[in-house]
Amino acid sequence: MSRINLALIPGDGIGPEVVAEGLKTLRAALPSDAKLDTTEYPLGVDHWKATGEVLNDDTLEALRAHDAILFGAVGAAPGDTAVPSGLLERGLLLKLRFAFDHHVNLRPSRLYPGVPTPLAGEPEIDFVVVREGTEGPYTGNGGALRVGTPHEIATEVSVNTAYGVERVVRDAFRRAQSRRKKLTLVHKHNVLVYAGHLWRRTFEQVAAEFPEVATDYLHVDAATIFLTTDPGRFDVIVTDNLFGDIITDLAAAVAGGIGIAASGNINPDREFPSMFEPVHGSAPDIAGQGKADPTASVLSVALLLRHLGYDAEAVRVEEAVAADLAERVPGRSTSEIGDALAARVAR
Amino acid sequence: MSRINLALIPGDGIGPEVVAEGLKTLRAALPSDAKLDTTEYPLGVDHWKATGEVLNDDTLEALRAHDAILFGAVGAAPGDTAVPSGLLERGLLLKLRFAFDHHVNLRPSRLYPGVPTPLAGEPEIDFVVVREGTEGPYTGNGGALRVGTPHEIATEVSVNTAYGVERVVRDAFRRAQSRRKKLTLVHKHNVLVYAGHLWRRTFEQVAAEFPEVATDYLHVDAATIFLTTDPGRFDVIVTDNLFGDIITDLAAAVAGGIGIAASGNINPDREFPSMFEPVHGSAPDIAGQGKADPTASVLSVALLLRHLGYDAEAVRVEEAVAADLAERVPGRSTSEIGDALAARVAR
Ligand SMILES: CC(C)[C@H](C(=O)O)[C@@H](O)C(=O)O
Ligand SMILES: CC(C)[C@H](C(=O)O)[C@@H](O)C(=O)O
Repeated sequence: MSRINLALIPGDGIGPEVVAEGLKTLRAALPSDAKLDTTEYPLGVDHWKATGEVLNDDTLEALRAHDAILFGAVGAAPGDTAVPSGLLERGLLLKLRFAFDHHVNLRPSRLYPGVPTPLAGEPEIDFVVVREGTEGPYTGNGGALRVGTPHEIATEVSVNTAYGVERVVRDAFRRAQSRRKKLTLVHKHNVLVYAGHLWRRTFEQVAAEFPEVATDYLHVDAATIFLTTDPGRFDVIVTDNLFGDIITDLAAAVAGGIGIAASGNINPDREFPSMFEPVHGSAPDIAGQGKADPTASVLSVALLLRHLGYDAEAVRVEEAVAADLAERVPGRSTSEIGDALAARVAR
Repeated sequence: MSRINLALIPGDGIGPEVVAEGLKTLRAALPSDAKLDTTEYPLGVDHWKATGEVLNDDTLEALRAHDAILFGAVGAAPGDTAVPSGLLERGLLLKLRFAFDHHVNLRPSRLYPGVPTPLAGEPEIDFVVVREGTEGPYTGNGGALRVGTPHEIATEVSVNTAYGVERVVRDAFRRAQSRRKKLTLVHKHNVLVYAGHLWRRTFEQVAAEFPEVATDYLHVDAATIFLTTDPGRFDVIVTDNLFGDIITDLAAAVAGGIGIAASGNINPDREFPSMFEPVHGSAPDIAGQGKADPTASVLSVALLLRHLGYDAEAVRVEEAVAADLAERVPGRSTSEIGDALAARVAR
């Protein structure tokens, strides 16, 4: 009998609603001999307002003991000026990505039959972005001088190491090897020459270990063009933290919207718990109304299952989503969609 | 009688072909009492191969004396490993943008009737991106240590000053004021907190001077979603150098392709010559075959005319392009399109 010790961080806005449905599907998918223990961590805006803390060291230590984390969304309502910009994003979401060394930020884009896309024609979309998760302009390096004066200067430093780039590039090659064997590096090496040189050189070196994988390079600006005009050309994309952030929102948009896009913040060696979350945010405007689509959370459960070795169960969840999307009944509530998905998975 | 002292930098690949057609339209558009003097500067890959120089100080000084620069495109063929990555981009294009303080990088996106878009439906697209052109991650700050070893670290520094941000934000507000009165700031202030704080604060301060302009903020990742699902929501966008690079390629793609996207590298106070160029690159694969579409170069001539105060002539060029695109005859060569446009403008 296997046991999964899962942490839940439902978070703010629609986070708790969609996580509840993700969990429903997870329970439906797991084999009967698997035991699921869950611990809920009430983090987010309300917790911060009540305690003044975003994430303290004890909670971080407690989270470390879990096998995985199912995350909802964090973020205050746009008008809520009591919450400083970036407080929850940096203090919770990014803090966990960094603390648990989630260097592979995995974001699949697949256009399921029946799902509307903003693109004309009927593009075939089935690729995955491997976004670096622990370096680049996300490290928080930088600063500001003479803030608020006409002489203010603010800097942001992108940090890229051979260690960090090589491991994520190798992970991407492995994924390409087990898919359609095509890997595209996305960067901007003609302008960001130092980081670009490191990424490009590393990419070429690791490529030598994977002779079956066809490789390709695109500047990030050109990548946004191909993502709209020819998304079918992509199989696996590997890119840095910021470029990955940008192109995966675009990728989600063309593949039917961020309402159904899932992501995994993965520590491949399982030294630390990996964390699975929808790409969408906390959507405070529709929170508490049962209007949120839990599909992204359910698809992130599929990524969680695969990460923990439940491959067949992951496929079952994805197939349930595909079947549900193909005959989508309009007007269902969050829990109705979750129930329908869980029922399909359990079948 | 007015006199325009124009520098031409045709550059590489299809650059010379499209610049020739841009020039044809410029001549057709100018009033008969305007005198056009042109000086061609043969810069680019071939010049570098022949001389070892990308752009020397004398040439830079000579360029400074012009009223404006009409630029084609630079960049080596992908297989040409003799040309180091970024050599022409940094050494010529970016060098000119920085030397001539082109802090307003103006990139209009307009979907002309008759032009195919990758988007479904019939979106109305008519907005302009004001991209900062002299700061951000484009300054070349950064470096690398222990290059080629497993301990390599490469950094890129984004530099943002109150001076630089304020002037471009104010320029964008002015443009919004004379258009549909809506300005969207695009940044990523929840992650890039130092630069983000500066951009956001400056934006709010300058907004107070333009009470008629409605303002809006989007994270760059979310902006890519709206550019594909609802591009009609935008009027003017202001953003930093790198985000602007990325979203303007996407904007060009949804508005009919980079084949027809124009840009102005503008020094608004005319202290230095502004430079006008297509958004597309040198496209070495189709160079010399008369296959390139010169429309982007012609539209950049419209931006040039407007910058030099020839507003009516700029409108005539844009109307000629609109009329030509509406009844586009397939299979025409570069010069046939240029002739057709010049004929319409001259009428
Ligand atoms: C909320 C934010 C910090 C985050 C990011 O930039 O990574 C989000 O946009 C994402 O893509 O997961
Ligand atoms: C060629 C390159 C340096 C340039 C840029 O990044 O600005 C180009 O992509 C552009 O958008 O004009």
